[in-house]
Amino acid sequence: MQKYLNEVSFQLDRHITLITPTAPIQPATHGGRAKCLQRLVRLKLPVPRTVALSFDTVKAIALGRIPDTKVLLSVFDADALVCVRPSSEDPDWGGPTTMLNIGMNDAACARLSETLGAGAARALYRRWVQTYAVHVARLDPDAFEEIDEDAPDALEQSLRAYEDEAEEPFPQDPATQLSEVLRSMARSWESVSARLLREAKGAPVDAGLGLAVQEMALGLGRGESGSGVLQLVDPETGLPQVTGRYLSQSQGRDALEAGKKALFLTTDPRGPSLQERAPEAFAELLEHAALMRQRLRAEMQVEFTIENGRLFILDGIVVPASNAAAIRIAVRLSEDAIITPQEAVMRVKPRMLSALLHPQVDPGATRDVIGAGIAASPGAATGRIVFSATDAQASAAREEPCILVRRETAPEDVRGMHAAVAVLTERGGMTSHAAVIGRGMGRPCVVGASKMRFQPQRKQIVAADGRVFKEGDIITVDGTAGEVLAGAPKMQAARLDDAFRTLLKWADAERDLRIRVNADTVEDAQTARDFAAGGIGLCRTEHMFFEPGRLTVMQEMIFAATPEDRRAALAQLLPIQRADFKELFAIMAGKPVCIRLFDPPLHEFLPTDRAGLRDLAEALNLPVSDVTRRVEAMGEYNPMLGLRGVRLGITVPEIYAMQARAIFEATLEASREGDDPVVPEIMIPLVSARREVEIVRARIEQEASAVRTERGRDFTYRLGVMVETPRACLIAGDIAPHVDFLSFGTNDLTQMTYGLSRDDAGRFMNDYVQQGVFEEDPFHRLDQNGVGELLRIGLERARAANPDVIISICGEHGGNPESIHFCRTLGMDYASCSPFRVPVARLAAAQAAIQDKIERS
Amino acid sequence: MQKYLNEVSFQLDRHITLITPTAPIQPATHGGRAKCLQRLVRLKLPVPRTVALSFDTVKAIALGRIPDTKVLLSVFDADALVCVRPSSEDPDWGGPTTMLNIGMNDAACARLSETLGAGAARALYRRWVQTYAVHVARLDPDAFEEIDEDAPDALEQSLRAYEDEAEEPFPQDPATQLSEVLRSMARSWESVSARLLREAKGAPVDAGLGLAVQEMALGLGRGESGSGVLQLVDPETGLPQVTGRYLSQSQGRDALEAGKKALFLTTDPRGPSLQERAPEAFAELLEHAALMRQRLRAEMQVEFTIENGRLFILDGIVVPASNAAAIRIAVRLSEDAIITPQEAVMRVKPRMLSALLHPQVDPGATRDVIGAGIAASPGAATGRIVFSATDAQASAAREEPCILVRRETAPEDVRGMHAAVAVLTERGGMTSHAAVIGRGMGRPCVVGASKMRFQPQRKQIVAADGRVFKEGDIITVDGTAGEVLAGAPKMQAARLDDAFRTLLKWADAERDLRIRVNADTVEDAQTARDFAAGGIGLCRTEHMFFEPGRLTVMQEMIFAATPEDRRAALAQLLPIQRADFKELFAIMAGKPVCIRLFDPPLHEFLPTDRAGLRDLAEALNLPVSDVTRRVEAMGEYNPMLGLRGVRLGITVPEIYAMQARAIFEATLEASREGDDPVVPEIMIPLVSARREVEIVRARIEQEASAVRTERGRDFTYRLGVMVETPRACLIAGDIAPHVDFLSFGTNDLTQMTYGLSRDDAGRFMNDYVQQGVFEEDPFHRLDQNGVGELLRIGLERARAANPDVIISICGEHGGNPESIHFCRTLGMDYASCSPFRVPVARLAAAQAAIQDKIERS
Repeated sequence: MQKYLNEVSFQLDRHITLITPTAPIQPATHGGRAKCLQRLVRLKLPVPRTVALSFDTVKAIALGRIPDTKVLLSVFDADALVCVRPSSEDPDWGGPTTMLNIGMNDAACARLSETLGAGAARALYRRWVQTYAVHVARLDPDAFEEIDEDAPDALEQSLRAYEDEAEEPFPQDPATQLSEVLRSMARSWESVSARLLREAKGAPVDAGLGLAVQEMALGLGRGESGSGVLQLVDPETGLPQVTGRYLSQSQGRDALEAGKKALFLTTDPRGPSLQERAPEAFAELLEHAALMRQRLRAEMQVEFTIENGRLFILDGIVVPASNAAAIRIAVRLSEDAIITPQEAVMRVKPRMLSALLHPQVDPGATRDVIGAGIAASPGAATGRIVFSATDAQASAAREEPCILVRRETAPEDVRGMHAAVAVLTERGGMTSHAAVIGRGMGRPCVVGASKMRFQPQRKQIVAADGRVFKEGDIITVDGTAGEVLAGAPKMQAARLDDAFRTLLKWADAERDLRIRVNADTVEDAQTARDFAAGGIGLCRTEHMFFEPGRLTVMQEMIFAATPEDRRAALAQLLPIQRADFKELFAIMAGKPVCIRLFDPPLHEFLPTDRAGLRDLAEALNLPVSDVTRRVEAMGEYNPMLGLRGVRLGITVPEIYAMQARAIFEATLEASREGDDPVVPEIMIPLVSARREVEIVRARIEQEASAVRTERGRDFTYRLGVMVETPRACLIAGDIAPHVDFLSFGTNDLTQMTYGLSRDDAGRFMNDYVQQGVFEEDPFHRLDQNGVGELLRIGLERARAANPDVIISICGEHGGNPESIHFCRTLGMDYASCSPFRVPVARLAAAQAAIQDKIERS
Repeated sequence: MQKYLNEVSFQLDRHITLITPTAPIQPATHGGRAKCLQRLVRLKLPVPRTVALSFDTVKAIALGRIPDTKVLLSVFDADALVCVRPSSEDPDWGGPTTMLNIGMNDAACARLSETLGAGAARALYRRWVQTYAVHVARLDPDAFEEIDEDAPDALEQSLRAYEDEAEEPFPQDPATQLSEVLRSMARSWESVSARLLREAKGAPVDAGLGLAVQEMALGLGRGESGSGVLQLVDPETGLPQVTGRYLSQSQGRDALEAGKKALFLTTDPRGPSLQERAPEAFAELLEHAALMRQRLRAEMQVEFTIENGRLFILDGIVVPASNAAAIRIAVRLSEDAIITPQEAVMRVKPRMLSALLHPQVDPGATRDVIGAGIAASPGAATGRIVFSATDAQASAAREEPCILVRRETAPEDVRGMHAAVAVLTERGGMTSHAAVIGRGMGRPCVVGASKMRFQPQRKQIVAADGRVFKEGDIITVDGTAGEVLAGAPKMQAARLDDAFRTLLKWADAERDLRIRVNADTVEDAQTARDFAAGGIGLCRTEHMFFEPGRLTVMQEMIFAATPEDRRAALAQLLPIQRADFKELFAIMAGKPVCIRLFDPPLHEFLPTDRAGLRDLAEALNLPVSDVTRRVEAMGEYNPMLGLRGVRLGITVPEIYAMQARAIFEATLEASREGDDPVVPEIMIPLVSARREVEIVRARIEQEASAVRTERGRDFTYRLGVMVETPRACLIAGDIAPHVDFLSFGTNDLTQMTYGLSRDDAGRFMNDYVQQGVFEEDPFHRLDQNGVGELLRIGLERARAANPDVIISICGEHGGNPESIHFCRTLGMDYASCSPFRVPVARLAAAQAAIQDKIERS
């Protein structure tokens, strides 16, 4: 019945072309489906004859310039029905629904009655009239809804209804039908909703639509007929297994909606299968699918139709796979020598890894959403609500999973966050304390859930719909979706399988940007080692002062009247801090460890509530009024821009002196235990002037000399600066000759460059991103035009002044794939990110390197 | 007795040279005094023979390489005594005391006994022995203190005391004496205290000292002999008047310490005068002084000696004049055609003007200092202590001058600051709220007086010495010195005389940088007009919302549930704001007025104390708990980096809409009253993204269209952006095509570039500047390396993208002379500064232009 494509050469113009092995068809001009069909044609697969319409043609159609459809139809078998399928550049961008059975009319109905039987032919015609009426002629669907499809005159009723609504008879001319279908599909691509939808998926503003006009394989008939899809893998796992759907006497993708009426594909004891019904066609189908996998170099979902036992391949798309499956598929294709390991690495989107590192809510689970916020740290966890860090620790001690619910978190909550299985806060954005720490720990976290009411004093949260959840109630935080769910939905475990490891091994082989980890605790360091980080790029030391016992000493230090008293208080912390560092050095076993000196403002260590002030007054043996006054006097208007970082280092030098000593003593003690000597890296935060570096460097060197003398042993260390003020970027050329390394702290740098506090940005960031004021939250994706420009200036000036200086990024952006790409392009030596982002960063860095190679070659 | 200089030519080497009209002497090699003496020699004035020692020579002397003083002395009359005077490059840098009577010994004493009488000769010798002992040989002064100078053997006692202490006899050889004097003076220049002293006055680290060895004119003798200083102006007023001191039978500057024993210079009924005693010498002296003024092109203080009726000119220095006198002198010299108006402009230091604009504590007054802080706004004022803005207003209503004392000030204190004569705060730095507003209003202001204890609840402040000053007590704030004084010291009125105006007129003729004013109120605008500002460069509008009656409406607006309610609340403010603008336009009479749209965070308009919250709850008819919760929820961690400026404009668009309408309606109403049409400038604050500008621009344009339609009249306006985030500088090329002007707000820009809150920096800024971490408080002097670099980048990119864009600076730095110079070099169109800095800025801009011309020519 059908003519095969290689028999004929047809080209209406260069934009409307029969798909032949040599026709000028490209995804960028005719769309992905047209290109795929051409590939199938080249493989000599049984593809029905297809004419491809280019983007330009479809654009012209939308403007009313319809091509001569009579000529177009002349390429097909005279009596054939045709279908029109969308062919956008990327299948993800959507497009209008495929239209089947174009050309169906009184004559065709009569003709098909002979082969299919009158009932089937009339049903096909009736369905087409209704589809055409609603989707092409845009008539009122209500006019057809009352027609009983089983009535003997259902077809006639439909034709009458059409004529009544359209005020003209149903068009009998196939060319007219086709013209109208093309016009309708072209216009729907230009609709506002379609445009918004595809732009949300990353399509450019001027994304084009191609159309493929294909001769129909009916899927109906006396012999085995039907349609379905088939793939050679399980799309959930990526493991080899024939999966799919097939439905007898069906068209298009009917099989996918058929439920239990669908047949099994392979022979199955549970019921009839395609393999049994049409063994030859099935064997041919498997052969074609394997060929497509081999030659199209991907696991393909094959869309096929069988007409009277004869197989037609209608289309093939890349199997829509789960994250885990996508990784396994890429690895298997490479192991089967179908693609290179490089290509396998390029095929996995970095964020897919991220989702796999944490348990998730099962995609099939029922979701009782009670609140939403910013998806600050991926993964999901279920537990009982607690409202304080202390309660979280108590809960953990009882081995009872809990969710820590806070207005916002602060350093003193860190232990509570560790104890909780997830964190939920009312305030904050992507780089608020809860978000940063949550990601670092791998705790699922939703922040800025401002639509729920938080009533911590009444120990309850209230959902938008008024439901109240009290302390002890079970909820689930879905940090991947940014939602809060009532109860305990079904979960899916984290899946770090061999494919995951293989892929990362291949990625590491390509990668030329080192990846370190931001790790503050022993737990972080262990996670980081498991994820094969190349060292610690940022160890924040302040959390070490919040542990019970240490905090009181810190407060004594803060209230000390003289430098001597301060030194005495700090001397109590020295052995503890030394032990902290020694353990970190031991875990990292020779890999570099970069320790940032004390950064936060001192008032963060002081209580603000009445009870805390009273306790503090007792501990210090001072009147409450006195303590209150001094605590108030230490308050700052803008703590972010206040007395912290190196400014404390300069004005209260005893803290840095103690820390330097702890680092050096730990260095010697860790080195004593064998292996290569430890070479610690010391980083000065919040620098804005060269002199700050000179002063601190001199004091640290003095401390080093003292330790060398006392211990009678030598060691070396590296000193660097955390570049996190715009000024430090601008004067990087001044600073670089005085340091061994510079590390851009892009969190603070972003705050200062925009004049935007990460803690306060949550209030309007959503508005801003939705209105397109910011393309994206700059705390989430590095702002290349502003912050990135400062990075570029800083890097250029630093390298010019000191070519040996090591340059890196250690902000949250260090884990963002786009930002990693950017930093590699700038020529940084390494990126450092939170532990659970290390695999993502390794992959992203590898992809950047490969893409670069491709672009250079 | 003396040989005249032109008789002989002497040069030991090129570093030790007799001062002749052609000797190679320059201030940079031999010092200012040597150069001045050479000029006097060229004028053929009776200058004793002098040999100049270069900086290099003196450096060598300090290291022990003494020149051959015998040869040096050979140039003088064989029996002459000599003196050695310091000659540093700038006389302000100090130097060792002049040493007189070198060469005095037994033989000279005998010789002089014949001419002066034995008593005078022996007294001279004795004084020399003692001076030499203490200042040259560095012997213990106690050894000489017990000697009764009237005893007949006082000389012999002194010589013995010398021998006892020095363990050698007093050196009789004049060459030895001279060698030791040179060594002693050279060394004292290298002492630490001398170095610190001159560096504090701006001397470079390697500043050199020259020495002048001069033949003595004795000032002693039988005929009229003595010494003194004379100048042709009153150094306090700068008006022409012969002033000075003369003392018979005296040497050096004895006359200056002589008190009532000094003679008048001109004939005077109150007592004897030089004019009567030595009319010829006096006439000659006046003639010489006039010649010096004419030829040295400055009002000079002439140091002279008369020996037996014969006049010698020993030195001349520029008259040390008061600020007011310095201006008048410069103007008079120019009016007398001695210097050009350009030179007159260059001779006045801009800060001199600043001091003249305000009353000052009289330099002669007794100062009972009870506290010190940062000299935030110049001038001094006396009044009774009040602790609240309300009390200040009440006090002003009683016409009782008061000093507003606050921990810090906030926008709601502005009316209180207006009412007070001066402001004193515990906290803050050069750009804290109190400082900025204080300078704007011209109120003397001391901020950051942290050494005093502020106890506002007890309505008292406690001085460092424990003295308590209560509400109602009288104190004086000296904002020029940064001190707080007890009681009411004698004051000096502000002096804006004709010379001041003439100088500024000349300055304006040279100036090529326009100067505008930062003026928020009608009072500011009037001050600015008096100081001839070229328009308003920054009118902050937020203060307009703090007036009583308006504040409640603002609070209603903030608590409004819907945009409609917000609009309704703002509609009440519209007529008030329109009236504000109309009045400003009227005062500025056609000069440009640049209005910055609403900038501060909304929570600044909400109360924080219990009483205020209760009032607010009543006014809004809401439960206190509800109001408290919402006020708390609006609090920000870092308000500086929060929801304010254009971010409010985007998210709460009703405010800018109301303001734009008020501006446009005022424009039409003000234009209706005659003259050229008003063209308002509207400035968007805190921009960090181009899209912010596009959105606000579109909304403002919409409002403009609406007003045009409603009123049926056309108008134009200019739209611009306040560039105050680092990002706005970096993307200035993106922004510039969308605006008419850009104005750098260097206050906020400095805060963000450094990551340094101006409100919190006070805590450590002193430490930082003292330790040299920052060369200078960057809020005081524009940081050219960091912030200035962003200005340069922003300006270049903006001009490249839109050559017509008008670029200016409107931060506090706009009034700082160095910063003005820098902005002019960058190529800005204008600078805008606080009202009382306008004259300073006009002068500084003129000097920059003149200096540029000089450097180019």
